[in-house]
Amino acid sequence: MPKIARLIDGKKIAAQIRAEVKAEVDALKKQGITPGLAVVIVGDDPASHVYVRGKARACDELGMNSFVHKLPANATERRVLNLVKRLNEDPKVHAFLVQSPLPKQIDENKIVKAIDPAKDADGFHPVNVGKLLIGEPAMMPCTPHGCQELLLRSGCNPAGKHVVIVGRSNIVGKPLAALLIQKAEGANATVTICHSRTKKLASITKQADILVAAIGVPEFVKGSMIKEGAVVIDVGVNRVEDKSNPRGYRLVGDVDFKAASKKARAITPVPGGVGPMTIAMLMQNAVAAAKRAR
Amino acid sequence: MPKIARLIDGKKIAAQIRAEVKAEVDALKKQGITPGLAVVIVGDDPASHVYVRGKARACDELGMNSFVHKLPANATERRVLNLVKRLNEDPKVHAFLVQSPLPKQIDENKIVKAIDPAKDADGFHPVNVGKLLIGEPAMMPCTPHGCQELLLRSGCNPAGKHVVIVGRSNIVGKPLAALLIQKAEGANATVTICHSRTKKLASITKQADILVAAIGVPEFVKGSMIKEGAVVIDVGVNRVEDKSNPRGYRLVGDVDFKAASKKARAITPVPGGVGPMTIAMLMQNAVAAAKRAR
Repeated sequence: MPKIARLIDGKKIAAQIRAEVKAEVDALKKQGITPGLAVVIVGDDPASHVYVRGKARACDELGMNSFVHKLPANATERRVLNLVKRLNEDPKVHAFLVQSPLPKQIDENKIVKAIDPAKDADGFHPVNVGKLLIGEPAMMPCTPHGCQELLLRSGCNPAGKHVVIVGRSNIVGKPLAALLIQKAEGANATVTICHSRTKKLASITKQADILVAAIGVPEFVKGSMIKEGAVVIDVGVNRVEDKSNPRGYRLVGDVDFKAASKKARAITPVPGGVGPMTIAMLMQNAVAAAKRAR
Repeated sequence: MPKIARLIDGKKIAAQIRAEVKAEVDALKKQGITPGLAVVIVGDDPASHVYVRGKARACDELGMNSFVHKLPANATERRVLNLVKRLNEDPKVHAFLVQSPLPKQIDENKIVKAIDPAKDADGFHPVNVGKLLIGEPAMMPCTPHGCQELLLRSGCNPAGKHVVIVGRSNIVGKPLAALLIQKAEGANATVTICHSRTKKLASITKQADILVAAIGVPEFVKGSMIKEGAVVIDVGVNRVEDKSNPRGYRLVGDVDFKAASKKARAITPVPGGVGPMTIAMLMQNAVAAAKRAR
């Protein structure tokens, strides 16, 4: 009988983390502090509105304050910067983010840099990215931090393991590498970062004890690219057309899940793997910021 | 006849860079700007004083202003912070650094964070480290930048190559990885970062097209750890006892040079490899800062 990989249940692990965060929220409220997360959304991108609603709902469920600021698609950069300034100064807002993508008249880089690093819920401000690489306490990038927690809480400590990351985005690949190479509990991995310019990719991915796919291409990682017994973390979320589905599409990751399941020891599904972790870590960031602001 | 690796001549390449920097200094002076680099040294560490003199001499040779601030070993943190503040505000000082190591009453982290990132000659401020990882223009860390220039100017473009870095320091290993994974000219490498917790190290280093040793252990990298035809960059500078030498010691790198020379296609010597590059890149940083301040 062929072995089938164990599922790493992101929903369940994220629920555990949310429960832990809830306990912290409750403790803070007894001290008269209600952690607050604000989200700024500019324009009408439907997927962004879905994400923002998800974030607000997560706040509600944990008893946190959530503040959603909707700006029209034609809002000026100045207007967004003014709002960022106000949120930086608002004591009720302990952390916030500006949902991407932004309309093209707005320089996303400029917006991120205007956010007070102490309130930078996404961990995207250069000073937080720098601290992450240096190994200092910082606001953590949510998706990489979620990947690390998924590994640790499913018995796959990356210490001493060879982690191969496919993808070098600023949101996932680069900060995840920065996180996992640290001389620190839950890190200490040997890390290889691969990308579009990598040669003989499969010969590298096949060495991974832990393989992370974050390249944004549906089912890019084939079964033949995975070592027998590896742990596979699939960060991708891609819509592929599927007429049999009432929505007309289905979600797939960056990994050929079926083939990978026959090789891997453990694997995250899409959806229900990394996705729920990102929001849980965002909540954790907001509460950590509220504690520090105390 | 056994092949012997080509020497990558850091002295010669550093001299080319200094000549380029000199031309920029001359051009700036015609506009009435003399680039200025300040160095702060606290205490009596003899090696630090040698480094600081070398930096000041390099400034002199390029016609730049150099300012050396010597503080006693018992200087308070407050005194160093006050000096940093003054240098941040001094228009004649375009870039500066505080020489490490610092006496133990002074928190080096705090000092680095007090430096204006625009004047951060070493590129150690978290905001510069973050920009480096994100891929934005930043003050570059001198030794990693010097390694990159050594590669590019000796015909060893890292693009598409597998670079294995042994060592994860904040001064070399981590920022060099950040630099070489970028989607950018002179980068685009597949990068693996190894360290004390890496298992089967030799099996990884033997895959390197470009192997960088920055671990701080004399002759740690043996010939057997190097792939035939690899390029070897030795960042280490270690004193080992040598009674036959009038100084009582000699300098060796982190690579067993003799054995490595028989395997590698090209290799940097110690001294005369990475060392001279670090100072050349420091000068380049100071001049770049002067140009931006213009």
